This record gives sequence, structure tokens and C-alpha cells, in this order.
Amino acid sequence: MEKLKRFVEGHLFQGAILIVILINSIVLGLQTFPSIDNSIGGVLNVIDLICIGVFIAEMLLKMIAYKFIGYFKSAWNWFDFVIILTSVLSGLAVLSSMRILRVFRVFRSLKGLRGFKMVSSLKPLQAIISAIGKSLPGISWTAMLLIVIYYIYAIIGVTQFGTAFPEWFGNIPKAMYTLFQVMTLESWSMGISRPVMAEFSFAWLYFVSFVLVTAFVMMNVVVGIVVSAISEVTEANKKEEHEENGTADIKAEIDAVREHLSKLEDMLAKQDK
Amino acid sequence: MEKLKRFVEGHLFQGAILIVILINSIVLGLQTFPSIDNSIGGVLNVIDLICIGVFIAEMLLKMIAYKFIGYFKSAWNWFDFVIILTSVLSGLAVLSSMRILRVFRVFRSLKGLRGFKMVSSLKPLQAIISAIGKSLPGISWTAMLLIVIYYIYAIIGVTQFGTAFPEWFGNIPKAMYTLFQVMTLESWSMGISRPVMAEFSFAWLYFVSFVLVTAFVMMNVVVGIVVSAISEVTEANKKEEHEENGTADIKAEIDAVREHLSKLEDMLAKQDK
Amino acid sequence: MEKLKRFVEGHLFQGAILIVILINSIVLGLQTFPSIDNSIGGVLNVIDLICIGVFIAEMLLKMIAYKFIGYFKSAWNWFDFVIILTSVLSGLAVLSSMRILRVFRVFRSLKGLRGFKMVSSLKPLQAIISAIGKSLPGISWTAMLLIVIYYIYAIIGVTQFGTAFPEWFGNIPKAMYTLFQVMTLESWSMGISRPVMAEFSFAWLYFVSFVLVTAFVMMNVVVGIVVSAISEVTEANKKEEHEENGTADIKAEIDAVREHLSKLEDMLAKQDK
Amino acid sequence: MEKLKRFVEGHLFQGAILIVILINSIVLGLQTFPSIDNSIGGVLNVIDLICIGVFIAEMLLKMIAYKFIGYFKSAWNWFDFVIILTSVLSGLAVLSSMRILRVFRVFRSLKGLRGFKMVSSLKPLQAIISAIGKSLPGISWTAMLLIVIYYIYAIIGVTQFGTAFPEWFGNIPKAMYTLFQVMTLESWSMGISRPVMAEFSFAWLYFVSFVLVTAFVMMNVVVGIVVSAISEVTEANKKEEHEENGTADIKAEIDAVREHLSKLEDMLAKQDK
Repeated sequence: MEKLKRFVEGHLFQGAILIVILINSIVLGLQTFPSIDNSIGGVLNVIDLICIGVFIAEMLLKMIAYKFIGYFKSAWNWFDFVIILTSVLSGLAVLSSMRILRVFRVFRSLKGLRGFKMVSSLKPLQAIISAIGKSLPGISWTAMLLIVIYYIYAIIGVTQFGTAFPEWFGNIPKAMYTLFQVMTLESWSMGISRPVMAEFSFAWLYFVSFVLVTAFVMMNVVVGIVVSAISEVTEANKKEEHEENGTADIKAEIDAVREHLSKLEDMLAKQDK
Repeated sequence: MEKLKRFVEGHLFQGAILIVILINSIVLGLQTFPSIDNSIGGVLNVIDLICIGVFIAEMLLKMIAYKFIGYFKSAWNWFDFVIILTSVLSGLAVLSSMRILRVFRVFRSLKGLRGFKMVSSLKPLQAIISAIGKSLPGISWTAMLLIVIYYIYAIIGVTQFGTAFPEWFGNIPKAMYTLFQVMTLESWSMGISRPVMAEFSFAWLYFVSFVLVTAFVMMNVVVGIVVSAISEVTEANKKEEHEENGTADIKAEIDAVREHLSKLEDMLAKQDK
Repeated sequence: MEKLKRFVEGHLFQGAILIVILINSIVLGLQTFPSIDNSIGGVLNVIDLICIGVFIAEMLLKMIAYKFIGYFKSAWNWFDFVIILTSVLSGLAVLSSMRILRVFRVFRSLKGLRGFKMVSSLKPLQAIISAIGKSLPGISWTAMLLIVIYYIYAIIGVTQFGTAFPEWFGNIPKAMYTLFQVMTLESWSMGISRPVMAEFSFAWLYFVSFVLVTAFVMMNVVVGIVVSAISEVTEANKKEEHEENGTADIKAEIDAVREHLSKLEDMLAKQDK
Repeated sequence: MEKLKRFVEGHLFQGAILIVILINSIVLGLQTFPSIDNSIGGVLNVIDLICIGVFIAEMLLKMIAYKFIGYFKSAWNWFDFVIILTSVLSGLAVLSSMRILRVFRVFRSLKGLRGFKMVSSLKPLQAIISAIGKSLPGISWTAMLLIVIYYIYAIIGVTQFGTAFPEWFGNIPKAMYTLFQVMTLESWSMGISRPVMAEFSFAWLYFVSFVLVTAFVMMNVVVGIVVSAISEVTEANKKEEHEENGTADIKAEIDAVREHLSKLEDMLAKQDK
């Protein structure tokens, strides 16, 4: 068992799986070209099936190595499990419309590369991800704020512009999509706002205020992440520095001086007697 | 009175109000779907009226609990008061065009959530808001600068392009809207600048300079906020650190050493006698 | 003379001038509305002339107060002088096409506001401007890099696409304007790149590489300014802190301790004799 | 040889070469104007040939000065060598289609300016470049992540929208170009997403998720660079500060105090005897 565990965690096994993932990714890409799919589509399908087989075998080996329950303790393994399951299910006739889910297998290459040789260079990314994690409470608040703003603007949009512009503000989901487009500043004026203003002269207030409010909220999110990332990094630096040449050393030295002095006092006190 | 105060500040009361706000928000959304409004519009109207009743009751209870004048000391209560007032007024026939103002009641959910259980996670947001507050003097200056730039460019635009492009530069408000669109870079070239350049060959200078100047000013605003947010956070960190292991401790220790030495001197001086 | 100097630097005088500048700005705006200009255009012209008269009088007063040469030592005064000169010249028949230059008088309001009561709140802005100033060497380098990139891409664009798309790449200035539009990402693909790609299939490389290269260079500029602004602010904070509770104090205390010890040694040495 | 080396590294030689590069750059620009090329095209061609001659002479001189192998130790020299080689080759009839590669000679002006007099002002740029260099591992990871995301979205796009919108999603390269356009937010909604949504109602999920995911990844890249640039600069500042007035000095002083005390003890011990 221990031997199997060492084998599935070894470079050889992980490298082989990574190569299979990359081959599978290329095959999935090649299948989108009609000319290639027509000529060697059968071969590609066979390779695809072999790859799925390898992935299932890998999953089973790992399940045995980690005694089934241990396997599901890793988020990456859950990720593998779901992808392989959907791949197998999409292969069945009843779920053929889910065939497209196979492409998520390409994501496994990230895991492969992570596990293989790029672990050492992940530190800066981890710092940023940890910073984003720490700034999530603030972001969740702004996300909630954004939802409320979207909801209010969507209701106003549907009520005011809904009948005149059914394609953009016909109902709340359509209005939300339009508002997302406006937030990204894509054709917000020439495409949406100016036609609406031609019918409702006050509409500029609606769009300009939405652009300003969402830009302000998004700026807050970015500033929040930058600040928390920086304070994270500088704090880590400070801790390191502390251990190196902190004031603790100086205090210890001064204590030694005081001990010396106590000894001197004792000696003098003895002389006095 | 104290009991009533504790009651309106309690989790139970605030949670109940939050649920009413959320129900009211959903009703306001449902009313925008014509099919739903036609079938159960009457029911929705009744629920809406009940919600307003609950909000008025909540307001009155709080007014009693805080003795009326105390109620108006909180900005959130003012916010509530204005929203409920406009809701009631918009219900009257004379102000039916203001019905849309009811949607601002959705904003109350933010307050509810704030007061209920997300207080603890607001710290990072508060740091950013405090940073934005501190950078406001600088921003107010840039805002003034932006207004002057907009005004000058609007006057130039109206005077030069007004007669040829009345829709974009017909008067100062129209020109300001067009300039805002140019600042957001939306269709500034293909939509506005190139058609204008076809008539006035020097117009590129007008638009390119406006894009560069406003981009520079906006970059200043963002950099200003980022920098002041970071210096805020690092300063707060430093103060904390100071109290932990500041140089004050070391000075106290050295003082103790000096006291020791003074004692020794006295002892030696006595011996000499 | 000293009295005159104090008078022109006083709040009363500067406030009065600021009001005249604001009145003048409003008049310049009102003149752009044809309906207003037709009805009370004569009155507005008279007010405009009075305002210019006041500005000339202010300039002359200041010249006398600072003995002419001293007046031209301030950049703001040079700014005033040029604006008033162009205003007077544009009033003459020969330069009536330069009338539009009068709008730059609106800029004087910034100076007025600066000199009047907002001086105290300018510190954060000054920190950013000083940071931008310090990062200018790096920016000037990137500006040079941008010019070389623009020049190379313009030459390639004119040589390759010039004959097929004369409006966009007809000559180097036209190509540079088009490239600026592409850099701002405005309609770069649907408006410019896709039509060009329809004729020259390799054109995607030209546009995508330009977008990536300029985005990278601009990101460098922004990061450079942010970093130099932050290091500026933190350095200023550190200097302050140093003076407050630096290690210098601790050294002085330790020196005092050593003096004590020297005294003790002398006393003991005397005893030995 | 040493004399030649000093000569090619001297200001006179480098300045002369820089002037030739600038003349050559201007000539390359002038040749794009048909009217100028028709009238004095022959003269321009001669100047161009002379410039190439000067560059070849410069290269040979440097090769002699650095003994050929030393010449190829500098990346800038390799850059020169490749540009001159392609220039010469593009002059030959067989490679006339590569004439456009001559414009890269304009890049040499950067090197000239760098080597001539702007070295001192490059420090801030170097800090940023070094920071980008340090953040590259994190960026390479995000670059890999971006490639995987692009690949998955391209496969989904081609499979789902390929037959209906062959121009945008006809094959994987076309889909990748379209996705790049969507990532830059250029006409992503009005130009691409809305037409696709008219046929496939679920397409909004595809485009909105892609916009959000790529915006998040790009934000990570920028935050990563900003943070690593700042931590780089602050660390450099700290090291400097350390050497100035570090705690090491204080420790040395305390050691001196202890030595004093030891001496005192010895003296007292002698007295006791």
C-alpha cells in the first residue's frame, strides 16, 4: 500500500498522466476541425476513449492508495472525480448533449503541471490568492452592494424603458445583462444610452449614474485587494525581520548588564561589612 | 422605554424587519413581469401595502424608543424616513409618477444586513472607506479640475462643432454628455471623433488631448486613493507594533541600569569617607 | 508699495477676482446658447469686456506691487499674462478666429480657488504630483519607447495597409491616430482589425501584438507611478518616525551609562592607591 | 585594440551612430509618403544604403574591438546583428518581401539613447523591470491558466456556435481571436454576444463568464506585479536603513558597557584580596 502511494505520488506516474492529459487536450481540439474529424475522426475517438480509460485507472489506483476515504479529502481529487464522472456520463447516449463537458478535462493539465515541477514558483501566486481570500469579506459586501444596485436599476429600467426597448429592458434578466454591458462600458452610450435618450430625455441620468456608481464600487474592490495584498506581504517581511534582529536581543543584553551590576553591588556590600 | 429600546435593537426584531425588506424587494421585482402582474398583481399590491405598514410601524416604534429627537441623530434613520415618506407620498394619486421611488426601499436590505450579522466582516471595507475619506481633499481638487476641463472643452466643442453636429455638441449639457462618453473611451473615435474629423480636420487634437488629459486626471485619483489607503493601513500596523515592542521598553531598562549605577556610586562614595 | 503688495495678496482682493473669474466663466458659457446670445448677447459682451478690464487692472496692480520683474517670477503670473494677452489680441479684428482662446480664462478659477481657501487640503495632491515628478525619468523612457513603437507600427501599417485602407493608414499621421484608437481599445477589432483582416489575413498579428505591447507599456507606467508614490509616502513617514523615537536616543542613554561607569572606575582607582 | 575599444565606447562614436540611426529612421518614414518617394525617392534610397553601410562598419569595428566572441556576449549586439543581417538580406531580390523588416532598425535608437546619456535616469525603470522579472513565475502560471481557459472556451465556442457564426467561431484560431476581442471588452456585447444570443439563448453565460474570469485573472496579474514591485522597493529601502542605524550599533555599545563592568569587577576582586 505504501509502495503504491509512493508510486502514484512519484514523478514518473504524474509525468505520464500529464502527458496523457495533454494528448487528450490536443485530441479534443483536433475534433473541432471538420476536415480532420472527417478523415481521422475514428482514430481520435479511440484515443479519447483510451485517455478516459487511463484517467479512470489513475482514479482507481489513487482510491486504493489513499483507502477511498483519504482520496476525497483533497479538493483536486474531487475535481478529478466530477470531471471523469461527467465524461463517462456524457459518453452514454442519454447524456450526449453534455459531451461538451469533456473539455473541462483540459483543466486537469493545470493540476498536472502544478503537481509536477512548478510547485516552487507558486509562492507569489499564493500570496495574491491569500490576499484575495483575506479581502473576501470586504468584497462579499461590495458584491452584495452590486447586486442591490443592479436589482434597483433593473427594476427602474424595466418599469421605465421596458415597453419601448423590449430587447434591452424587456424583463429583469434582460435588464441585468444590459446593465452588465453598460458596466463594462461596451457601447453603453452610442449603442444603448443615446437611443434610449431619444425617447426618454432624462435617461442620461440613469446611465451616467450607473456607470459612475459601478466604476466606484469596482475601484473599491481593486483598491481593497491591492491594499490587503501589500499589507499581507509587508507583514510577512516584518515578521521575518523581527526574528533576525528584533529588540528582544537588545533586552537580553541589557539584562546581562544588570546581572553584572547586581554582582558588583553584592561585592561592594560585602566590602562594607 | 429601555425595554422597547432593547427590543428594537435586538436580533429578533432586526431579523424580522430584514425578512420583510427582502419580501418587499422580491415583490417589487415580480411586479415588473407583466404576466405575473396580470395574474396575481392584486395579491402583490396587498403584500406591498402590508410591507409599507410594517416599515411605518418600525419607524414609529424606533421614534418612541429613541424619543423622536434621538431617532434623527442616525443617518440610517434619516435614510429610512425619507424612503418611507416618498413611498407613502408616491402611493397618493397626485404623486403616482413617483411610484418608481419605491425601489429605493431595496437599499434598506443593506442596512438590515449590516445591522444583523455582517458587522464583523466590515473592517477591510471600513479601512478603504476611511482611506477614500482621507483622500477626498485631493479628489475634490481633481473633481474641480475635471469640471473646469469639461467646461472649457464643452464651450470649445459647442462653438466649433455645435452647428455641424447638433446632436453631440448642440449645447453645453449635450457636449458634456458627449465628453463623458469620450472619457469612458466608448466609441470615441469611430463614433464621434472620425465623423467630426471628416468636417474639421483639426478635431483630432480636441479629442486626443481630452482623452489623454482625463485619463491622466483619473489615474491621479486612483493612485491617490491606493497610496492613501496603503499608508493608512501600514500606519495602523506600525502603531500596533510600537506598543508591542517599542523602544520605550528599552529606555526603561536602561534607566533601571542607571539607577543601579547611582546606587553603586553612593556605596563607593560612602567607602571613601 | 508694501501696502499694495499686502492688498493684492489679501483675501478680499483675491476673493473679488475669483468672483469676477466665475462670472466671466458663466458668461462665456451663456454665449454658446444661440437663444440667449440673440436676446441678451449685447449685455453679455459688455460684461465680458468689463471682466477683461478687471483682469488687466489686476495684472497691472500686481506688476506694480512686485516691481514688474518680480511679477514674472511666478509661473501662475506668466499663465495669467499669456491668457490676458491672447484675450486682448483675440478681441482685435485681425485675430477674431482666436476668440475661442478666451475660454482658457476659466482655468484661472483654479488658481483663484488655490490661492483663496483650499491651500490646506492640497497636501495629498502634492504628494502624488511629487511622486509623478520623481517617476518622470522612468516615464520619459517609456514615452520614448512608445514613440518608437508607434513609429515602427505606423511605417508597417502605411506600407502594408496604406493603399487598401487610405482613411486609416493613408499616411503616418493617419496611421498614428488609428494606432492611438487601437491602444484605447476603441472599436479596434470590429471597427479596424476585422475589415483589415478580410483583406490581409496576417493582420491579426499586427493588431494583437500592438494591443499587447502598448497595454504592457502603459501598465508599466501606472505601476511605476504607484510604486514611486508609495515609496515616497512611506519614506516621508519613516523620517518623521525617526525623529520621534529613533535609535539616536538609545545611544545617548547608553553613553550616559558609560560615563557613569568611567566615574566608578576612577573612584575605585583612587581607592586602590 | 584597447584604443579601438575605448573609441567605440566613447561618447563621440556612440553619438555619431545615434545621429545616423535617427537620420535612417526619418528616411524610412519619408519613404512611406508617395509624393516624397516619387520626387526624391532616389536620394532617400542612397541615404538608406549609406546608413546600412555605416551600421555594417560599426558592427565590424565592434567585432574587432571585442575580438568577435566578446561581441556576441551582449544581448544588444545580438539584436544589432540580427537587424543588420535581415536588412542586408531584405535588400537582395529574393527577399524583397522582407523589406519591411528594415523598420526594426528604428529600435536601435533606443539602444543609442540608452548608451549615450540617459543611463542615470534608468533606475526607476530597472526597479519595475526587476519587479516584473520577480513576479514572472506567478505570471507564467496565470499565463498558463489563461491559455487553458482560452482553449476550453474556444473548443466550446467552435462546437456550439461554429456552424452558425463561422466568421467568429469557425475554427479554434478564429475563436481565440474573438475571445481576445471579448477579453479587451471591445464590442463584446453589441458586436458579438447579442447576435449569438439571438440564436443561442444560453450564450450570455458563455460570454459573461468569460469576461468575468479573464478580468479576474488579469486583475491578479496586475495586483501581483504591483505588490512585488512595492515589496522590492521597500525591501531595498530597509536594507539601506539597516546599514545606517541598525540595532548592530546598539549591541556594540552595550558590549562596550559590559567590558567596562568586567574591568570594574576585576578591580573590586583585587581589592577583596
